[in-house]
Amino acid sequence: MQRYFLAETTADYQTAELILTGEQYHHMIRVMRMKIGDEAYLVFPNQQAFIAEINAIENESVVMHWIADETAEKELPVHVTIASGLPKGDKLDYVIQKGTELGAAGFVPFQATYSITKWDTKKAAKKIDRLKKIAQEAAEQAHRTKIPSVESVYSFKELLEKSPQFDYCLVAYEESAKAGEDQNFAKTLKSIRPGSSLLIVFGPEGGLSPTEIEALLAVGMVPCALGPRILRTETAPLYALAAISYHFELNEPIEPFC
Amino acid sequence: MQRYFLAETTADYQTAELILTGEQYHHMIRVMRMKIGDEAYLVFPNQQAFIAEINAIENESVVMHWIADETAEKELPVHVTIASGLPKGDKLDYVIQKGTELGAAGFVPFQATYSITKWDTKKAAKKIDRLKKIAQEAAEQAHRTKIPSVESVYSFKELLEKSPQFDYCLVAYEESAKAGEDQNFAKTLKSIRPGSSLLIVFGPEGGLSPTEIEALLAVGMVPCALGPRILRTETAPLYALAAISYHFELNEPIEPFC
Repeated sequence: MQRYFLAETTADYQTAELILTGEQYHHMIRVMRMKIGDEAYLVFPNQQAFIAEINAIENESVVMHWIADETAEKELPVHVTIASGLPKGDKLDYVIQKGTELGAAGFVPFQATYSITKWDTKKAAKKIDRLKKIAQEAAEQAHRTKIPSVESVYSFKELLEKSPQFDYCLVAYEESAKAGEDQNFAKTLKSIRPGSSLLIVFGPEGGLSPTEIEALLAVGMVPCALGPRILRTETAPLYALAAISYHFELNEPIEPFC
Repeated sequence: MQRYFLAETTADYQTAELILTGEQYHHMIRVMRMKIGDEAYLVFPNQQAFIAEINAIENESVVMHWIADETAEKELPVHVTIASGLPKGDKLDYVIQKGTELGAAGFVPFQATYSITKWDTKKAAKKIDRLKKIAQEAAEQAHRTKIPSVESVYSFKELLEKSPQFDYCLVAYEESAKAGEDQNFAKTLKSIRPGSSLLIVFGPEGGLSPTEIEALLAVGMVPCALGPRILRTETAPLYALAAISYHFELNEPIEPFC
């Protein structure tokens, strides 16, 4: 069943008439050819999700009414933010689409030393809007109740400054993988309480520079390997998110949270 | 350091002259501009991987000698085969590239009821060769010691017939996710002994048909959800592989293997 994120929360949504217009009207009626009596999921900004039925289709608007709330939890119990050193080409689109499917809470692109791509500040705002749209569409498709945030590109300095806002910070470090480090990622997940926030930093192609790694470790970030194979810059965040979902959503915690 | 898969195993490789020609010569000398004294990883079909140094660069060939064996284990302890209902566009390329990075042992594309793509039998062989090349390049990039196999497209009947060759068989089933099933995947991983083989079946866009699901369960496959979010057909295999790597390579087994 289709899923649509509404811009505003309606307090009395269980009794009110719910009016959809613009792109959502277009998608429902013109693209999906929905008819009176058809149902869809609607999701408010407050993450309340519910099934609604079409009462009426008017010129440029659809009138719906509440049928039943959605109760199942669709969001990761840990709020994971993916910081990606600006990669080449459309890899960031890809990290945001797949990362959203896999449950990321937010994305922070940053200008890394080895980033070949440099964003033209004039075009940056437009690019971020495109990335936000990719996140929204992926969230709808994945049946999520939250659209991940997409921050505008941080400098490395800003990334360091923002890191204390997170309860836990990891940095995916290729050299850790090569050196056979295989404990830090799982150890960190075992220590995280549901509800906490986790930032994971990923370098661009070519990885993070020694200076960047040094600075990230200096502010207390934990370096970790994501298995013994070397993952591409756009693959590593997906590994981390899938492992976090497996750990918290499919597997029991190994140790009682403490 | 670059990694090259050799077509043949040399018994006395630690003392013999190792000659690279063709594409590998071209990549080393023309693309990577490697010089005498430069090193690369070489990997034999028997999965023996080692560091070798260039002794001489001749017309159309490179002569190398052994420096040191690679000891770290790069392969998943469970041999995972991904069966993908033929998806649209280039999604299969993508599943094979990322699935190889994430440690898959093999790929089995199959013609599913809801597959929109139908492969022209004339072009199929050529397409499979391309997919094998994608797997080889991804295996080199990921520092693996094994190139995953890529089978030619199976019919659904062939898929059913081959399934008894595997120690364990799972089928990723969207309805399980919607119904909140969240035990089967982790339960299966906990029961698997390292060294066993696991087949995981994924539907194309639109999923598996009720008849297909019925037939797969009838031969003893276990339906499982990969978290509460609905994953695209090309994302689900990556989730499964990352979770398997996390379970076996980064996390201790939850229960002693029995």
